[in-house]
Amino acid sequence: MNELFSNRISQVSPSFIREILKVASDPAIISFAGGLPSHDLFPVAALKKATIDLFNDNKEDILQYTNTEGYLPLREIIAATYKKKGLDINADEILITNGSQQGLDLLGKVFINENDSVLIEEPGYLGAIQAFEIYAAHFIPIPVGQDGMDIDVLKIQLKTAHAKLIYTVPNFQNPSGISYSNENRKAIAETLSSVNTLIIEDNPYGDIRFSGEEKKSFMHYLPKQTILLGSFSKTVVPSFRLGWIVAPKAVMQKLVIAKQAADLHTNHFCQCILHRFLQDNDLQTHINKIISVYSHNKARMEKAFVKYFPKEVTHLKTQGGMFLWASLPKGMSTKGLSDEAIKEKVAIVPGEPFYINKHEINTFRLNFSNSHPDVIEEGMRRLGKVLYKYIENNE
Amino acid sequence: MNELFSNRISQVSPSFIREILKVASDPAIISFAGGLPSHDLFPVAALKKATIDLFNDNKEDILQYTNTEGYLPLREIIAATYKKKGLDINADEILITNGSQQGLDLLGKVFINENDSVLIEEPGYLGAIQAFEIYAAHFIPIPVGQDGMDIDVLKIQLKTAHAKLIYTVPNFQNPSGISYSNENRKAIAETLSSVNTLIIEDNPYGDIRFSGEEKKSFMHYLPKQTILLGSFSKTVVPSFRLGWIVAPKAVMQKLVIAKQAADLHTNHFCQCILHRFLQDNDLQTHINKIISVYSHNKARMEKAFVKYFPKEVTHLKTQGGMFLWASLPKGMSTKGLSDEAIKEKVAIVPGEPFYINKHEINTFRLNFSNSHPDVIEEGMRRLGKVLYKYIENNE
Repeated sequence: MNELFSNRISQVSPSFIREILKVASDPAIISFAGGLPSHDLFPVAALKKATIDLFNDNKEDILQYTNTEGYLPLREIIAATYKKKGLDINADEILITNGSQQGLDLLGKVFINENDSVLIEEPGYLGAIQAFEIYAAHFIPIPVGQDGMDIDVLKIQLKTAHAKLIYTVPNFQNPSGISYSNENRKAIAETLSSVNTLIIEDNPYGDIRFSGEEKKSFMHYLPKQTILLGSFSKTVVPSFRLGWIVAPKAVMQKLVIAKQAADLHTNHFCQCILHRFLQDNDLQTHINKIISVYSHNKARMEKAFVKYFPKEVTHLKTQGGMFLWASLPKGMSTKGLSDEAIKEKVAIVPGEPFYINKHEINTFRLNFSNSHPDVIEEGMRRLGKVLYKYIENNE
Repeated sequence: MNELFSNRISQVSPSFIREILKVASDPAIISFAGGLPSHDLFPVAALKKATIDLFNDNKEDILQYTNTEGYLPLREIIAATYKKKGLDINADEILITNGSQQGLDLLGKVFINENDSVLIEEPGYLGAIQAFEIYAAHFIPIPVGQDGMDIDVLKIQLKTAHAKLIYTVPNFQNPSGISYSNENRKAIAETLSSVNTLIIEDNPYGDIRFSGEEKKSFMHYLPKQTILLGSFSKTVVPSFRLGWIVAPKAVMQKLVIAKQAADLHTNHFCQCILHRFLQDNDLQTHINKIISVYSHNKARMEKAFVKYFPKEVTHLKTQGGMFLWASLPKGMSTKGLSDEAIKEKVAIVPGEPFYINKHEINTFRLNFSNSHPDVIEEGMRRLGKVLYKYIENNE
């Protein structure tokens, strides 16, 4: 059988995180490993009402095949939300996708030939690495830190590599939680303005801001070179698999061809439910609830971090999203940390899978969106115990 | 911008059918062009009840992220249906996809390198051509006729080409409506048993049989070489985008990696609704309703065919599904027929897009599932008028 598989699929390794998540699904384990939004915050009653109203109204053909681009009234709501933020985006520049993960797959399909260079944040979102790896992208990692991308490395890499794409999550990045400052964005935009490279701004967490000021989209600086990815998975529900791509018209034409070949169109029934929900409810009010819970969770996790962890363990600051990014002392690897933590019934994700071709990474990711504050406290206590022992044994 | 696009997307031409369907959406036009199931037969009340029950029960986490393989109880129902038909298929050999179109995309991803040979029925399903074209497959067409594939051509092609895949729709094929006889299936299986080629059996219409006996799946003859694609789009509703792949374990592992990179998982909410619907309703009773309506539509179309069309126009026989496949006299092309028909407010699909590298094709496809019998009568009357004139002008 093996000789039949394509080169692209043969070179992709099974997801390490997938394996961790399988272990972490044991209910005795406190999991900081996943990236799940809180179940308790799903707007169940409002979605139920929207669904029943939709069935009763019987206005739309909610069960039939539909167009590839997606439900127009839903795309109009997305466009209007951008307009409120000062971005002049129209519904016909928006394609509805199965979560933003499909956006990544379609962009890979439309742009990446074997060994084409793609610049990517390091650490970077694993789902993007997986999606582009299937199209045999040549990844060039650009380090990100507390305030954004390393501009010097970016400039050097752009001089030698003809990168088609640069992938970014500039708000509350997965995995590091950091956001690019406006200065950093401006410097990136200036650097990119002279090259033929498209920037992907993946923004699943941008609306979940606990503090600080909203930053400017790359679309402000580079309207012709920016592709936006959006998602309702973190602000409404993930199971509907509803996200979108905003792209220039020439790109959109190709994306629609790729989308049609991929699955004809996204689930139309749920597009209609979501549209109804957004029409009848104020999304911002709902997002404010999410912000209130997650920011409280994060505060509890930070407090427990100080209380239970060895002082050599540090974390980057975040003003939103779902993750804290922790570091052991330099030179120490978190490779064995996950196994040790599982023994104490707490799960984390070690940093390594988020890096391109790097090993012996000293970072790990902690999710704070999907546990109650008291559970966070207990999980951090357990993890603290593990860390003291781990550092002692690895020094 | 153009220099940034991948080779794979640059070589795909926009769908001709897509353009026809846009024109055919004019309500003044009677459309035999699409491949839509009848809106009137959607089990709206039962799906509404299943949805409300699901919300009320609050047993499953219907709004959260879930596993890539798909909702296990739904896969168990699919497996049980195969077992009733004598096929020993387990839930863990089934992957839920966004319609069977995504099954085609994932198979392309997992198997096809640039210029890999893929055998395909001629005429063949356009969605399969599009899906595999994106992975730059080298298509080798194998003619199909009233009773199935041309075995002689198949044998000759298999001798010279190392084809990884052979794509078939053996029941009520799209576009031709024909089914492979059991003898033809056996002969194909014998031919394939000595080569390292996987056969894809795409079966969206198999349950919609009006007459004749159910034929044997290739899985009976070639259990280790057969990949099945299934879909609820024609038997329940298309807008949920729910289909599945059955594949050997080694293939399934690769498909799951590809599915995860493509969109993490299929809409979980609708998987739960569909499962509930299938649990609380007898699908066969519902399918019998579909069969009753479509077979009546088909009979009406066949009668009108004789009544209104020039006698030189013929069609293949079908015992189910949604299409009649018509032919003009040999040597005549249907290329201009679609435009002439649109002028008379009736839409068809000319045969050409269903062929690989062939032009001046004399066939066209008529859909009978999505029009009321009286509308079919009127559409066929209009089309008859067009055909008399068209044949006269093209003789």
